[in-house]
Amino acid sequence: MFDDVKVVSFDADDTLWHNEQYFLDAQENFWHLMEKFLPAQASGQELMKTELQNIDLYGYGIKAFILSMIEAAIQISDGRITSRGIETIIGYGKEMLDKPVELIDGVDDVLKALDGHYRLVMTTKGDLLDQERKLKKSGLADYFHHIEIVSDKKESEYSKLIQHLDILPEQFLMIGNSLRSDILPVLNVGGFGVHVPYHTTWEHEQIDHVINHDRFVELTTIRELPALLA
Amino acid sequence: MFDDVKVVSFDADDTLWHNEQYFLDAQENFWHLMEKFLPAQASGQELMKTELQNIDLYGYGIKAFILSMIEAAIQISDGRITSRGIETIIGYGKEMLDKPVELIDGVDDVLKALDGHYRLVMTTKGDLLDQERKLKKSGLADYFHHIEIVSDKKESEYSKLIQHLDILPEQFLMIGNSLRSDILPVLNVGGFGVHVPYHTTWEHEQIDHVINHDRFVELTTIRELPALLA
Repeated sequence: MFDDVKVVSFDADDTLWHNEQYFLDAQENFWHLMEKFLPAQASGQELMKTELQNIDLYGYGIKAFILSMIEAAIQISDGRITSRGIETIIGYGKEMLDKPVELIDGVDDVLKALDGHYRLVMTTKGDLLDQERKLKKSGLADYFHHIEIVSDKKESEYSKLIQHLDILPEQFLMIGNSLRSDILPVLNVGGFGVHVPYHTTWEHEQIDHVINHDRFVELTTIRELPALLA
Repeated sequence: MFDDVKVVSFDADDTLWHNEQYFLDAQENFWHLMEKFLPAQASGQELMKTELQNIDLYGYGIKAFILSMIEAAIQISDGRITSRGIETIIGYGKEMLDKPVELIDGVDDVLKALDGHYRLVMTTKGDLLDQERKLKKSGLADYFHHIEIVSDKKESEYSKLIQHLDILPEQFLMIGNSLRSDILPVLNVGGFGVHVPYHTTWEHEQIDHVINHDRFVELTTIRELPALLA
């Protein structure tokens, strides 16, 4: 099935290293801070709404998230949150930006196993500086032949990448935790999609149907990837 | 002098289109908002200090600028600014992100004149989404063979780009308004640097010495570029 594959492309956040958990931790802090104005669940909904409203303007990443938290806090408190409260929110964001990079179990072994057999690529979306910083901190940079950081993972971005790598779509395999960003657009342009679910997925990245496709595989852990390709 | 040049690479902000003026306008609004706490000049210094402190963590671009304005406002007002005041600052930022792209006089003619004779590249730093949006709005995208958006313009980034373009350093010419980001690192890796000053330059981008180099040229307007290369 994978005989033609030449390039294995890895999503980064929640595929190579933990990420969503840091957003969840910050959200929990946010709920607590907002508790005197609104119950946690309603705060969470308001924040999600603000994030989605801002996505076209701000894009993905931590800076966008901080700005949406501040905006939601003003909304939720009807302007009653103090600027010191907002300073606290900025602090949550700076803490996120400064977090160490924790690799997901098995990642290092998998990259070692595939190294030399495939061209390895990292394809991620979000904030350029933040993703570069995480890659550097991860110690994985030397494995990758090419790093692609895009503002959004759409079919057109994958087509451009495949063209840039000078391969055919059926020589391209993408592995990641988001069906919406890592798998569906890749299948649609003719590549292979390998899904490794993370224990939690941002609502915005979720899709509500089952994928049934002959170039699609679902794994339980990234550790299974070398055996799958062998 | 330029016989070997194959790739002409353009900086974007304040070289292809106006940018710094929008930051200055937002800063002026910020000073007015802060006037009841601190005179304008001191506010400006505090904001600049906050921006520089945050550059490693936030990088360049409008979202970083909004976050620094909020932080500086809390600092300047000693926590007395209301959350509605902070909402106003977020509004300045959103307005900046939503601005139309105004081309600098002559840009379209210059790109037309060079098109077909050189590989044209756009090399810019800052926020990925924001720069992509500006390129799209500018109507210039079709001129460019390659778009490079980096988190910072250092020698290593230019070396990588030159390698990626599969040319020699002396076949690479960069044109831009920042001596610090567009010219010095390019001269240092062996390329040509053409400086076109913008009427205003962010303090952080300024250098305090005169450049005297045989691969360096200073122009008054970008309109002079085709004649220079001919």
